[in-house]
Amino acid sequence: MADFEGILPAIATPMGSDGRFDEAAFREVMEFNIQAGVDGFWVAGGTGESVLLDDDENMAIARAAADQNRGRVKNIMHVGAATTLRAARLAENAAARGVEAICCVPPFFYRQTDDNIVEHYRTVAAAADLPLFVYNLPQSTGVEITPELMAKIQDGVPQLKGLKHSSINFTNVYSWVDMGLECLIGSSALMLPALTIGASGCVDGPPNIAPEMWVEIWDAYQAGDLVRAEQAQRQATRLTMLVREFGMHAVIKGLLSYRLGIDVGDPRAPTQPLTADQREEVIARAEAMGVGRVGLAVADD
Amino acid sequence: MADFEGILPAIATPMGSDGRFDEAAFREVMEFNIQAGVDGFWVAGGTGESVLLDDDENMAIARAAADQNRGRVKNIMHVGAATTLRAARLAENAAARGVEAICCVPPFFYRQTDDNIVEHYRTVAAAADLPLFVYNLPQSTGVEITPELMAKIQDGVPQLKGLKHSSINFTNVYSWVDMGLECLIGSSALMLPALTIGASGCVDGPPNIAPEMWVEIWDAYQAGDLVRAEQAQRQATRLTMLVREFGMHAVIKGLLSYRLGIDVGDPRAPTQPLTADQREEVIARAEAMGVGRVGLAVADD
Amino acid sequence: MADFEGILPAIATPMGSDGRFDEAAFREVMEFNIQAGVDGFWVAGGTGESVLLDDDENMAIARAAADQNRGRVKNIMHVGAATTLRAARLAENAAARGVEAICCVPPFFYRQTDDNIVEHYRTVAAAADLPLFVYNLPQSTGVEITPELMAKIQDGVPQLKGLKHSSINFTNVYSWVDMGLECLIGSSALMLPALTIGASGCVDGPPNIAPEMWVEIWDAYQAGDLVRAEQAQRQATRLTMLVREFGMHAVIKGLLSYRLGIDVGDPRAPTQPLTADQREEVIARAEAMGVGRVGLAVADD
Amino acid sequence: MADFEGILPAIATPMGSDGRFDEAAFREVMEFNIQAGVDGFWVAGGTGESVLLDDDENMAIARAAADQNRGRVKNIMHVGAATTLRAARLAENAAARGVEAICCVPPFFYRQTDDNIVEHYRTVAAAADLPLFVYNLPQSTGVEITPELMAKIQDGVPQLKGLKHSSINFTNVYSWVDMGLECLIGSSALMLPALTIGASGCVDGPPNIAPEMWVEIWDAYQAGDLVRAEQAQRQATRLTMLVREFGMHAVIKGLLSYRLGIDVGDPRAPTQPLTADQREEVIARAEAMGVGRVGLAVADD
Repeated sequence: MADFEGILPAIATPMGSDGRFDEAAFREVMEFNIQAGVDGFWVAGGTGESVLLDDDENMAIARAAADQNRGRVKNIMHVGAATTLRAARLAENAAARGVEAICCVPPFFYRQTDDNIVEHYRTVAAAADLPLFVYNLPQSTGVEITPELMAKIQDGVPQLKGLKHSSINFTNVYSWVDMGLECLIGSSALMLPALTIGASGCVDGPPNIAPEMWVEIWDAYQAGDLVRAEQAQRQATRLTMLVREFGMHAVIKGLLSYRLGIDVGDPRAPTQPLTADQREEVIARAEAMGVGRVGLAVADD
Repeated sequence: MADFEGILPAIATPMGSDGRFDEAAFREVMEFNIQAGVDGFWVAGGTGESVLLDDDENMAIARAAADQNRGRVKNIMHVGAATTLRAARLAENAAARGVEAICCVPPFFYRQTDDNIVEHYRTVAAAADLPLFVYNLPQSTGVEITPELMAKIQDGVPQLKGLKHSSINFTNVYSWVDMGLECLIGSSALMLPALTIGASGCVDGPPNIAPEMWVEIWDAYQAGDLVRAEQAQRQATRLTMLVREFGMHAVIKGLLSYRLGIDVGDPRAPTQPLTADQREEVIARAEAMGVGRVGLAVADD
Repeated sequence: MADFEGILPAIATPMGSDGRFDEAAFREVMEFNIQAGVDGFWVAGGTGESVLLDDDENMAIARAAADQNRGRVKNIMHVGAATTLRAARLAENAAARGVEAICCVPPFFYRQTDDNIVEHYRTVAAAADLPLFVYNLPQSTGVEITPELMAKIQDGVPQLKGLKHSSINFTNVYSWVDMGLECLIGSSALMLPALTIGASGCVDGPPNIAPEMWVEIWDAYQAGDLVRAEQAQRQATRLTMLVREFGMHAVIKGLLSYRLGIDVGDPRAPTQPLTADQREEVIARAEAMGVGRVGLAVADD
Repeated sequence: MADFEGILPAIATPMGSDGRFDEAAFREVMEFNIQAGVDGFWVAGGTGESVLLDDDENMAIARAAADQNRGRVKNIMHVGAATTLRAARLAENAAARGVEAICCVPPFFYRQTDDNIVEHYRTVAAAADLPLFVYNLPQSTGVEITPELMAKIQDGVPQLKGLKHSSINFTNVYSWVDMGLECLIGSSALMLPALTIGASGCVDGPPNIAPEMWVEIWDAYQAGDLVRAEQAQRQATRLTMLVREFGMHAVIKGLLSYRLGIDVGDPRAPTQPLTADQREEVIARAEAMGVGRVGLAVADD
């Protein structure tokens, strides 16, 4: 059994009216997901607006995530940044705050040699000394983590535990499993298929909005109930596709605000929020999928 | 239930000592696969050296495939060619010979407009008037069949039945299913994952060598036995990876000759056969996977 | 001074009303270009519909090209085909007919190893024993000829003389020059820029229609007249862009028929000819660039 | 005549022993280049480690660049950042400090819609109200600025003046010129070719080290001396290739320190400096190209 397995939503980063991290709203989103039965979180990652956050926001998020969680589920904190020094500082802070693991994109913007990538991970992982998940997100970083590159990271970074695999190369799931890594599939539309070939779980943004859908996939899969698992994945995928159609950050923030009855704010510019018309359509289509208002049991927490 | 479903190996095209199509060996490979329980064949496709064949060879293969089969399984005959006229002639012949369906790559070498691609398929499909499978093989054709392009084909080509999806974009399986198409996944390493999201079957070269491995995946999946299906896929994938490591045509022809105890010949140049050393290593590793000699019950058939 | 230099139009392959190679029209197009001062031809290449031609057509074109030329300019005959055997036969024929050089795309459709590519070129070049030009056309073949791959070809193929470079990687012109190869730039919009960094000439389809425009670039460049060369390139590029906007084969055949007052036929399907409206617009815009009717001095030749 | 033309080196950002911006060394590099006859600078851009810099460093660089320049040449200050807010603040500062123009990469990491990209540029350009150069650097940003996208930017951003074109698509230089934009070619190996088709100048890192080589290309081109311009470009390109072979930031910082006899520091991690062996080889090869020590006439300036 894997240490990090099941469904770990990539949690959004709510913003207040001043456009800065809104800790109270973040705690409510986290609590809603924990109550729904998730196994952990991918914090301040791609869905959480990662590199659009200032370092002090990242540090505040790590603190809030660990504090709200109180050890109930697994927090994997994203610490990727443009420089090694900044990423290492974020890693150090994440460990001090009490998250269960860290994750990190490879260096982006400037294409680096394999040696430089390994050295970056080595430094960042050492600063936290927690399990490390590589974040394979080539559409954002320009770096495809190939099995060859991952083998070099595995050789050089003792904290390496696994990866979030958000590359289009689905077959590489086999490679990660063969290497003894925990593979968290980065597409919520492919959770079930990935599980059947050895992935240990799923990390993505849409489960953030409707965690119950992916908890159902995981439960059915664990029970060996193929028919129910397929049915659950089909339902869940419809929501994933709605999110992709209108834009990840805009839809997730729009639907979270609607569903939980709170204001999680807008995506940070240059990303733009849904227009009023889009918001209306997205909500109607989500409602039709059974993703409606839930209210929050945690309002007085 | 789909009309074309289960495991349909992409059958190799054996060559004689003169380097031309060897009909007798072809019939033996086909019979070996039918006895192993396959549901059909993808004939003269990517594994079958397709566009390296002369048109008269393609026509002879269609005749032999239909004749050997005698309606027991489903033959999907590849008729793709560099010009529309040649492809249409091959389609007409395939229908006359009695195959169950045709398949066709989009125009290759010169990049065509969507309109030209639809017109190509319209003409070819009309020449056979059989169920048509589009062959989405961007690594060879330079054309990614997107859902948008497929919608245009669906509008213009009444014979369209489905596709073989050999693109790296695994998520598009959902699109094909939503469009009412039968999706045959083109990677034998991804048969089970694809089935869980709606694919109707699998077409690929490696099952040609060891059809029993993929028949087992299909049977377990049909029985809803997730554990057994996963185990079967894991085993089968090891063979797929061996084939990829040393080169598709070279390994498939080398292992078919060894396993069946016949000579199916070499790949046609520019493709080169395995060297003697490679052949030895490939056979040893296949034996270790349980893919050994079988002899041929059909020798006197 | 290079052996193959200046402007070598990629000549179109006229088709008769039966859709087959029209030798008489081909000779007229060739003569029109020779009279305009071109230095040679790229025959049955990308513009000449190459792999859409049957082998007997390719052979007939080689014969007509050599016969019409009578040694006045340099014919570089394309002999690329899907199999090594077919390409070698075309190469042998080309040499027998009396062309000055051959050219050949690397193996296409199936991705080959570097070793297989070298072996393919070795066999084809040996069959002609004429100067060989590699045809770097990755958008059609899926193979980028890198300097590393070219070095292997140079090691293995004594007849290698140069290449037509139609890749987007413009900087590689330096590599070819450093390797002692004659680089014919494959974009007629980039003739002058390529000459300034060591290319020996230009091969492309648009010069076929209006050879005088590119002859002017070459003459001005040879005279060291930078202002005139830039002016000529600017003019010529406008025609190149018109060709690209409406599709290469369709525009070139449409404008050749109009300009020479003959019927060179349509592109072979799946490529489609200009619609009547497109033809009218293309002709009007070409006329506005000074590319109007010329009549043919060679009609009674 | 263009407002921003000729050779504008992409100036490096020297770092002190504390790993932070070293203003004194920066002023020396700038002065060395001005004395050599450059026409301006691309400041804190790709070569200047751009997004690896903190915002306060970017602001300090803008101040130093304007102050050292005192209006002698044209400073184009890079203000790109991960969020619109941060980029706009940098733009506002750059204008306040007195640079002649700003430049900005499109939003990176998260793929944005065209509308979001235009809005980003609109906000950033308005904050400075100086001539704006778009920075087309798809290898770092994942965004190819196509002519279609640029037309939208041109419609929405009145300050748009031109671009640095560092895309592999060389032919698009024609598009920029046709749109009335000043195109600064982003490859120092392609300065002369780009000038012949309408580029107004060149921005790249290698000219930073040996500005005299590119000043020579510009002077020869301006004089219409084709032979001399080609010779100068050939020489200069050898240095560009050396820089690429060992890594841009590492070589430029290594050679600047050597050549000027000062210490400009190392690239910021994750980028790594040259090893001692590499440094020795790079210096020897640069010396062989005539790029040796110069000492600094400006030491007491």
